[in-house]
Amino acid sequence: MSLTDLFDPDSIAVIGASKTSGKLGNDAMANAKEFDGPVYPVNPSGEGSVYGYEFVASVDDTDADLALCCVPGPATPDVIKECGEAGVGAAVVFAGGFAEAGGRGTELQAEIQSIGEDYDITVLGPNTAGHIIPHRNLFSSFVPGFDEIESGDVAIVAQSGGVGVTATFQLDREGYGTAGMYGLGNRVNTDFDDVIPVLDDDPETDAIALHIEGTTEIDDAIEAVDQASTPVVTLKSGNKMEEFVQAHTAAPIQEYARYEQAFTDAGAVMADSMTELLDASRVLAQSPQAEGPNVGLVTAQAGPGIMMADYLDERGVNFPELTEETRERLDDILLGFTYDRNPVDTGRPMPEFGDVIDAVGRDDNVDIVLVYEIFEHSLGYPIEELERLTADVDKPVVFTVAGPNKALADDRQRMEDLGVATFDSPERGAYAASVLAETSR
Amino acid sequence: MSLTDLFDPDSIAVIGASKTSGKLGNDAMANAKEFDGPVYPVNPSGEGSVYGYEFVASVDDTDADLALCCVPGPATPDVIKECGEAGVGAAVVFAGGFAEAGGRGTELQAEIQSIGEDYDITVLGPNTAGHIIPHRNLFSSFVPGFDEIESGDVAIVAQSGGVGVTATFQLDREGYGTAGMYGLGNRVNTDFDDVIPVLDDDPETDAIALHIEGTTEIDDAIEAVDQASTPVVTLKSGNKMEEFVQAHTAAPIQEYARYEQAFTDAGAVMADSMTELLDASRVLAQSPQAEGPNVGLVTAQAGPGIMMADYLDERGVNFPELTEETRERLDDILLGFTYDRNPVDTGRPMPEFGDVIDAVGRDDNVDIVLVYEIFEHSLGYPIEELERLTADVDKPVVFTVAGPNKALADDRQRMEDLGVATFDSPERGAYAASVLAETSR
Repeated sequence: MSLTDLFDPDSIAVIGASKTSGKLGNDAMANAKEFDGPVYPVNPSGEGSVYGYEFVASVDDTDADLALCCVPGPATPDVIKECGEAGVGAAVVFAGGFAEAGGRGTELQAEIQSIGEDYDITVLGPNTAGHIIPHRNLFSSFVPGFDEIESGDVAIVAQSGGVGVTATFQLDREGYGTAGMYGLGNRVNTDFDDVIPVLDDDPETDAIALHIEGTTEIDDAIEAVDQASTPVVTLKSGNKMEEFVQAHTAAPIQEYARYEQAFTDAGAVMADSMTELLDASRVLAQSPQAEGPNVGLVTAQAGPGIMMADYLDERGVNFPELTEETRERLDDILLGFTYDRNPVDTGRPMPEFGDVIDAVGRDDNVDIVLVYEIFEHSLGYPIEELERLTADVDKPVVFTVAGPNKALADDRQRMEDLGVATFDSPERGAYAASVLAETSR
Repeated sequence: MSLTDLFDPDSIAVIGASKTSGKLGNDAMANAKEFDGPVYPVNPSGEGSVYGYEFVASVDDTDADLALCCVPGPATPDVIKECGEAGVGAAVVFAGGFAEAGGRGTELQAEIQSIGEDYDITVLGPNTAGHIIPHRNLFSSFVPGFDEIESGDVAIVAQSGGVGVTATFQLDREGYGTAGMYGLGNRVNTDFDDVIPVLDDDPETDAIALHIEGTTEIDDAIEAVDQASTPVVTLKSGNKMEEFVQAHTAAPIQEYARYEQAFTDAGAVMADSMTELLDASRVLAQSPQAEGPNVGLVTAQAGPGIMMADYLDERGVNFPELTEETRERLDDILLGFTYDRNPVDTGRPMPEFGDVIDAVGRDDNVDIVLVYEIFEHSLGYPIEELERLTADVDKPVVFTVAGPNKALADDRQRMEDLGVATFDSPERGAYAASVLAETSR
């Protein structure tokens, strides 16, 4: 089974394409139309064109590599078969009503599995929101608005399409794109261990955010994570509510502790929420790996700094003593007015704030620099100092921002461009630093 | 000591006002200029005007009720004295270098305390970012950008000014304003138990978000919370890093468990992070009190719904069986295709999604309705159905949104206007529902 037609097709067929707004086959076309290569809306009763693309009667009339199947569950086996006959290499099946529904659905799923095998077709789904790869302008999904998702460095692999969609829109809402979102759904023949190695080799993907509800192929998934050199963050859900989970992606119920142990042993970070999943992935994607777990905390406001210190302390993160040399440098800048141990508190934003970060960042006892500063327009954020520091020292710097959102946006972007990951709330910045400590050498 | 001059002054003096951008006395003027009454920039060496206001040489030349003191710590006692002589009733002291610095600072603080007593002046601070009351156009702070903060229904009372500022900007970033932010700092004579009763009586304040680092007057603070009928959420920080905390607001170190027990007994919700503090406050401000702790969860996407169910289950929240009547109504709508127990899963957004919420919301077993739906433009959110439901049934409804941010903004605002609190991430919606369960009758 070749995955190329799923990840990097030359042409796309949308089977069941429709002109009617709100229909699955119309929503899928609205996303597929962004693709740079040929896009074929397939519908025997289609007349004229949709989004500028002429309808074709059959997938057999196309040279499509990838088919988006926008037909109901019971019609799917025949459609996959037609795809196979037409030489299509990969198919995305959006419809539900398969193994997760039981009964006839389980039989239907077995049919498409068998047809997939016969014709060597990579099937994503069924029961999925599809996949998107913004840097290839490939939006293979019915989700309205996905055509505007930007490229980013975190890829999302979600057992639940809905979770993948939620994660994608959360990144988008916060100003980030994605290196790709893959909703696996019922995983008829495309599973975690198929997708993860491809993403591990993908130069656009710098971290993998994994959502898992439960799988009997857990060992294969773990093995894939273990083999990956790209950082992986895992969110395991579906720990309770057995019946509900079963009705979703037909996932078996398995003990959370087993997943936690196995994924942690394989080098993944376990996240407890959507926000943690994305924040951990983002900081790992953007930052160099920390050489050790020691955090140097620099804050321009003591109160939020204390909250962050609490949070890190609860997670067992260490604040090392600063070297004599650093303390002397800090004394020269701060004149002893504020707290100059670790955390270092400047009391207020000041023109020398960047120098304070620089001093802590160059301290041999510090592996990870965590900063908190409320933005003041007359000072801005210390871009130049951060540029110099990150050029000289290969340590992760996490910057926690606050202030008037529009005013700080440009400086925030400049910091991201330097590889300084930025976060919004004290606990989110602290969490990101704790992830770097956990994954240090 | 009258608090009126602090909360509702007729005129303001900015002592140490300056024309020089970036100076404290300029930043304070930039905020104070929004005030509807007279604003007096006071500076003996000031010439001409600043932000359109003529300098005056002395506070004695004004009829100010409230003075913003933008002078260094050592100059503060004299300034407070002049304020007293001039009949000023309240003063905000931004400068640090008082009890938190020890030594001469402790003496300075004792001096302003004694002068405040002699002249019956309400002093906010020292060592504070000040206070803002947007619905009175009162921005008594040096923090740049505060003049653009909007009115809202959550008031923030923070021992640390920096935490108060962070909380204010976090609400602003997410599209909310504040009913007021009060940074207490060193609390020379304005403490938690002074501010909380005023806010409890304030019709604009529907919830109070409290940040506390530690206080020897803990019993007074607890008593004020206990007496308040307005919901209170508390974030206690400064549990570790004794020396650093002491250097901040001169707060004593006390055991977290003691605070948790006492505040919980007094009816407050304990939050663990900035985001929880604000989300809990927001949902309590916007929602009717729940009659009981039972959550009915309606989701248009099973995966995020499962994550929310996990989260609620971990927090011990109960999902009741739905009544026979509700299940029949749901069967008619959903035709048995998806999971129709509790959680109720519609599998995808659908035109009848509002009816599904309605059915669950009217179920006698359900006290709190929690919804998750990814926005689709062709359907929108079910505003009309929510309007009918909230008009007929006095139960809290929490709506968790996802999707293209700009596209859903209008519908989100419409829901907020109906008293339906909205949240962004699955765990945040679930957390809000858990807070309503915890505070139910």
